[in-house]
Amino acid sequence: MNINNKQLDKIVENALKEDLGFAGDITSDNLIADCHESKAILKFKEKGVLAGIPVVKKVFSKYDSDICIDFFKQDGEVIENGESIAEIKGNTCSILKGERTALNFLQRLTGIATQTAKYVDKVNNDSIRITDTRKTTPTLRILEKYAVRVGSGYNHRFGLYDAVMLKDNHIIAAGGIKKAVKKIRSQISHTVKIEVEVENFKQVKKAVSVKADIIMLDNMELDEMEKAVNYIGEQAIVEASGGITLENIKAVANTGVNVISIGALTHQLKSIDISLDFVGES
Amino acid sequence: MNINNKQLDKIVENALKEDLGFAGDITSDNLIADCHESKAILKFKEKGVLAGIPVVKKVFSKYDSDICIDFFKQDGEVIENGESIAEIKGNTCSILKGERTALNFLQRLTGIATQTAKYVDKVNNDSIRITDTRKTTPTLRILEKYAVRVGSGYNHRFGLYDAVMLKDNHIIAAGGIKKAVKKIRSQISHTVKIEVEVENFKQVKKAVSVKADIIMLDNMELDEMEKAVNYIGEQAIVEASGGITLENIKAVANTGVNVISIGALTHQLKSIDISLDFVGES
Amino acid sequence: MNINNKQLDKIVENALKEDLGFAGDITSDNLIADCHESKAILKFKEKGVLAGIPVVKKVFSKYDSDICIDFFKQDGEVIENGESIAEIKGNTCSILKGERTALNFLQRLTGIATQTAKYVDKVNNDSIRITDTRKTTPTLRILEKYAVRVGSGYNHRFGLYDAVMLKDNHIIAAGGIKKAVKKIRSQISHTVKIEVEVENFKQVKKAVSVKADIIMLDNMELDEMEKAVNYIGEQAIVEASGGITLENIKAVANTGVNVISIGALTHQLKSIDISLDFVGES
Amino acid sequence: MNINNKQLDKIVENALKEDLGFAGDITSDNLIADCHESKAILKFKEKGVLAGIPVVKKVFSKYDSDICIDFFKQDGEVIENGESIAEIKGNTCSILKGERTALNFLQRLTGIATQTAKYVDKVNNDSIRITDTRKTTPTLRILEKYAVRVGSGYNHRFGLYDAVMLKDNHIIAAGGIKKAVKKIRSQISHTVKIEVEVENFKQVKKAVSVKADIIMLDNMELDEMEKAVNYIGEQAIVEASGGITLENIKAVANTGVNVISIGALTHQLKSIDISLDFVGES
Amino acid sequence: MNINNKQLDKIVENALKEDLGFAGDITSDNLIADCHESKAILKFKEKGVLAGIPVVKKVFSKYDSDICIDFFKQDGEVIENGESIAEIKGNTCSILKGERTALNFLQRLTGIATQTAKYVDKVNNDSIRITDTRKTTPTLRILEKYAVRVGSGYNHRFGLYDAVMLKDNHIIAAGGIKKAVKKIRSQISHTVKIEVEVENFKQVKKAVSVKADIIMLDNMELDEMEKAVNYIGEQAIVEASGGITLENIKAVANTGVNVISIGALTHQLKSIDISLDFVGES
Amino acid sequence: MNINNKQLDKIVENALKEDLGFAGDITSDNLIADCHESKAILKFKEKGVLAGIPVVKKVFSKYDSDICIDFFKQDGEVIENGESIAEIKGNTCSILKGERTALNFLQRLTGIATQTAKYVDKVNNDSIRITDTRKTTPTLRILEKYAVRVGSGYNHRFGLYDAVMLKDNHIIAAGGIKKAVKKIRSQISHTVKIEVEVENFKQVKKAVSVKADIIMLDNMELDEMEKAVNYIGEQAIVEASGGITLENIKAVANTGVNVISIGALTHQLKSIDISLDFVGES
Repeated sequence: MNINNKQLDKIVENALKEDLGFAGDITSDNLIADCHESKAILKFKEKGVLAGIPVVKKVFSKYDSDICIDFFKQDGEVIENGESIAEIKGNTCSILKGERTALNFLQRLTGIATQTAKYVDKVNNDSIRITDTRKTTPTLRILEKYAVRVGSGYNHRFGLYDAVMLKDNHIIAAGGIKKAVKKIRSQISHTVKIEVEVENFKQVKKAVSVKADIIMLDNMELDEMEKAVNYIGEQAIVEASGGITLENIKAVANTGVNVISIGALTHQLKSIDISLDFVGES
Repeated sequence: MNINNKQLDKIVENALKEDLGFAGDITSDNLIADCHESKAILKFKEKGVLAGIPVVKKVFSKYDSDICIDFFKQDGEVIENGESIAEIKGNTCSILKGERTALNFLQRLTGIATQTAKYVDKVNNDSIRITDTRKTTPTLRILEKYAVRVGSGYNHRFGLYDAVMLKDNHIIAAGGIKKAVKKIRSQISHTVKIEVEVENFKQVKKAVSVKADIIMLDNMELDEMEKAVNYIGEQAIVEASGGITLENIKAVANTGVNVISIGALTHQLKSIDISLDFVGES
Repeated sequence: MNINNKQLDKIVENALKEDLGFAGDITSDNLIADCHESKAILKFKEKGVLAGIPVVKKVFSKYDSDICIDFFKQDGEVIENGESIAEIKGNTCSILKGERTALNFLQRLTGIATQTAKYVDKVNNDSIRITDTRKTTPTLRILEKYAVRVGSGYNHRFGLYDAVMLKDNHIIAAGGIKKAVKKIRSQISHTVKIEVEVENFKQVKKAVSVKADIIMLDNMELDEMEKAVNYIGEQAIVEASGGITLENIKAVANTGVNVISIGALTHQLKSIDISLDFVGES
Repeated sequence: MNINNKQLDKIVENALKEDLGFAGDITSDNLIADCHESKAILKFKEKGVLAGIPVVKKVFSKYDSDICIDFFKQDGEVIENGESIAEIKGNTCSILKGERTALNFLQRLTGIATQTAKYVDKVNNDSIRITDTRKTTPTLRILEKYAVRVGSGYNHRFGLYDAVMLKDNHIIAAGGIKKAVKKIRSQISHTVKIEVEVENFKQVKKAVSVKADIIMLDNMELDEMEKAVNYIGEQAIVEASGGITLENIKAVANTGVNVISIGALTHQLKSIDISLDFVGES
Repeated sequence: MNINNKQLDKIVENALKEDLGFAGDITSDNLIADCHESKAILKFKEKGVLAGIPVVKKVFSKYDSDICIDFFKQDGEVIENGESIAEIKGNTCSILKGERTALNFLQRLTGIATQTAKYVDKVNNDSIRITDTRKTTPTLRILEKYAVRVGSGYNHRFGLYDAVMLKDNHIIAAGGIKKAVKKIRSQISHTVKIEVEVENFKQVKKAVSVKADIIMLDNMELDEMEKAVNYIGEQAIVEASGGITLENIKAVANTGVNVISIGALTHQLKSIDISLDFVGES
Repeated sequence: MNINNKQLDKIVENALKEDLGFAGDITSDNLIADCHESKAILKFKEKGVLAGIPVVKKVFSKYDSDICIDFFKQDGEVIENGESIAEIKGNTCSILKGERTALNFLQRLTGIATQTAKYVDKVNNDSIRITDTRKTTPTLRILEKYAVRVGSGYNHRFGLYDAVMLKDNHIIAAGGIKKAVKKIRSQISHTVKIEVEVENFKQVKKAVSVKADIIMLDNMELDEMEKAVNYIGEQAIVEASGGITLENIKAVANTGVNVISIGALTHQLKSIDISLDFVGES
């Protein structure tokens, strides 16, 4: 599982700039000797699914390439309250400068992975995918999509550029599902899939008839969903979306859909509490 | 209330890049005529404190300077479920390209303002400030701090560069609170305040004795807080922090502290549901 | 047909920087009065398919937003030797500063569109697509892919990020086509297509058996291609690639493949000669 | 022979971004183990003059600083069809991610060096320079000018900023060659040369009379060129330009001009076919 | 004493770009062998307080990470005319490329430190601070503020963002000092100090009455300054500003002010002459 | 007279960022109403040669495109103490945000133009050029070179890329002046001049013998300079450099050299005092 290294670089650079400004860390720089070295521990203060190791490494290495970070745990592991996950050694000022930024990333991404894992566990069916949406935090999408994968979820499209999604406004503008799919298919690359968002059974039939690659059942009732799933069969991938919660996801899964996409994976956030504690000079 | 325009520019640019990639919106661009114009409405789907108007305007104007957005509501107003807040008119493709990014910003910032307002309302005392912390989403700090202000909260320092905060690790490294404050005061600009984080009454007395500008009571019991408040009096600003919730904030406020800083304003996020609905061609 | 405006902006900015350096156009700036205005004509010096209007507009508007450009022709039109395509009016220095950069873009993109149109005309069959590849000029891919579309060709994937392409090295690394397709399908988003590159009929059968979305016949003989096409039928999109020339493309098309991808559309370049002539003061 | 390292960095960064987008190489990242290592060979598939080693090294090192590239050949060497030029060892995913971008650069630059060498060989006279022009691919000028030097050609000016070139439009605007040269000389730095483009013998005489440093004979007939060369003597550098081909270049050279500048070196491109073949795990 | 490493990086990158342009150092690159190594010495040609070591190191390491620089002196040391301060060893071309940029920085920063030290020496009283202002060279503020600290001066605020300064225009706009301080205090973070610029004793009293943190006596007569100092006592930090020279600074200091801010530290510049001399091949 | 607009843009952007940081102008933004408008006057507080109008315009327009600036004077005019040069009207906060940055630029550039004009006046001979050097403030070279031109001086080369300058180290490395000139001439573009730095008459003769375009007499005695001038005649441009002051420049000019280059034009800075005064609401 990877994060595009060049994009990660840019994001972390922007994050450090924001915290350090022009003058830098005026507390540490003016108080602590340049040569002072410390050892610190990253520790979970509540249970969660660890996500964000490459980001934490990047934060510290970006400011000071001599810092050593040794992770005892891997992204995707369930960490208990009180468990340590990594040891950081190096220049004390450098650790202090990266601390807040590293934790801000790590707590959020771990929060997303933890939340994703809850939905995946609830469904408890390997043949059904739980996916994210484009409802991610602006500028951090690749990190949040990584956290979803870490939490055993899957990604939906990355942006407006890597798959076609025909929503109601597109369909209205084109004069119906059939016209929309035909027109778009005649324009886009043969390497791109077409997903159609439908709201009722009539639309399902139209989407099938023009061979949409993916049919997204938007906010449908469970029985209508099931009817759609049965009708579509293997002719398209069936995706359920809209109003999915931990309470109703199992029922949605039971309709037989292939994919359940959930905006709340990334737009409702419960950060997991993680601390960085100094444990001595190194 | 303002957001630094140049920084906002950069953030929105990065957000649009992420969603549009290199190829752009392959659905809209291939389906909808270049000259097609539409009218759309931004509408709240649940109650909340509106925050993010300058960001929404920037998103659309950045991609297409001809789009017109007319907001009927101001940032800071409480919006009811079902209320419309703005009308957007212009090129249909441009509206569709900005839609998700604009909503992703608006829903998050409105969520933060709404959450902040709840804490402020609970305290219900103008002489006590509810503030954010540096536990903000990396790269979006200036926007989230703006949303806190919109929700009637206040800002804590913006970064490591604009105020001194002596935490336990600094104090240990310097050999105690007195040495730390004296050393840092001899180095930093006379325009910068010094805040000291203390954990017990003994530390409170030391911080007062060296004239710390702000004393932060970290995770103290209510009675110890009150004792500290009484001891400090007007000699420093007193800030409470750590473990503040909607349940206990009123009690914390009652101790007489001046400032209550709450990480959860920005690191626990409940986005407010807001939709962009097309209402016809313009 | 669109070019992502934000990316175009960046490319043109880099191109202008390269020609103007730090000191700018030392000839024009030192010779011609700031207020001098001129009128110039863009004229084809040989026959070709016009491509690049949005780029030319961007070059001039980027340096001087007051320049007026009026195109009499549209991208995609066949222009004869000697025909004028646009009139440019405005500050003389600004026109001279943009001239070379604008022409360098326009001549190359027109060259690509013209070359593409030749392949498309040779095949002369709307149901078969001529597509580009990733063998584009580094940093200019979105412009060259635009020129291919202008020349009635189609685009293949934009980069490594928007479709899966399993080449021989991937297949070897994964232990065969079947394993490769299964593994990749279990990882990637359900919105992404999988293309498999095959070199013989045995591989064709394997690719079909694991439901590859696209099967690329790499450098196959015509009879083997035809055999593959017949075997695959509607089970996958069939793409021919490798060694396609204006001489053999009709024969390749006759095998019944759906798509023919041609690196030479962008990696062999015959710029079309276009001039910018001043025709008087404006 | 050098390429400005900082500019090369920026170009390669932009090129990699374009191919990797935000999500990166979704094929390799999802299929191949992070720790998998390979060995690959760069091999010429047709004869050519190698150009682009620093660019290839930068592409791979930029993405993964642990990749080792060992070149057996130097830029400027004639490579035969089938000859290997380099061995690349390192992380398999990193090699695959850089492959297409590295080849796209190398094939183009080698194409330019090869083409340049043909013109130089045709003239076969060390005292006559074959130079490029500003008709280079936008954003890649420094690389293409490097390739021209590698192919035993010379560079003309790099941009609008490092030499004065008075073309017809400048001359008209200034009221003749004499006025133009005098005015420009009174403005520009004494470190900058003045080149004047002339179309007939009358203009040649004027350019000589005001001591132009370089006189460019634009699209002149051979006999007129010779007349100009004889007249000018050592009073200025004589440059021929316009309509130079492999067929007529020897005749042009025979007129005695000092420099022959050829746009086609960079605006007509025949990429040389070079492959990257995996030869085993390392 | 530190310079924010990331900002330094950006400044040095921009400085090198400016000197190297696109084509690089055409003299050295075309004359000196790639593998040629040299040794050079940085030497003071007049007496001064050394300032700028981190900048010099960054300039050379940025272009060529293999260059070794060994400084025998520290920033802040007084260097005599003729004294060597560092030895530089490495690639000759790299040293030549960085030479001018490194010296341009070093001579200016050393000039600022030297000038600052003169003011500090004149006052000769550790309890009174000599500070800079915002009258710094645009884009180089963090470096110049560093040089002031190196010269035993102190920094004033870094920008418009890290302290409040109420000047006459603000005070007029707000309707007086009292209203201005009250309004601004109700808006800004509790971590930010408020400085008020006053011109007469009446304003001093108002500023004290609203508990301004810092009161700046702008261009006051000495006796009025002394009256203000006595009135204010420990109620605020007292800063003198405006028209301070080496001639009058001692008298100003004798009034008992805490801080003297001097624009001339950075807006009048006497560069110190420092040379880089090659002393042999290494 | 022009400044490259794109480079100016970048410089001003960096300058504004530095002053506004992330939080912006916390004084003005929190004190003054968004809609408040003012009128301000730029006024000289001492005599000088105005330089920097395009920079001042860019500073204000960059932050707020609605600000109107009306200059009554032109760059290059001598302004007396007390004279107003421009009126600025618009949003009060925007004017306050740009004020310091605009003045920091304007005072420095005007200082440079004023200083340059003094040297030019001293020589008082149109046929002798006073030029700058590369000893400019890093990152601001194009602005300082513009100010030199405004002060009736001329520019030397802009960087390492636009002219060859053979200094002692180059000459030693190449094995003498003759070898150095021959080698470099065989490598560089025919559009580039070669300047040779010489220290004695023997070197002058060598430089002439290999037809150096410019011969720079480095720190020569007046009589030796005159001897060199007489020897060189029209065979090269003669430049004097090193230790030029207002006291000795007339004598240097009298030796008959063509060009006198002076580092002090830009590395010794006396900013001219200019104020921005609010004169009422607009």
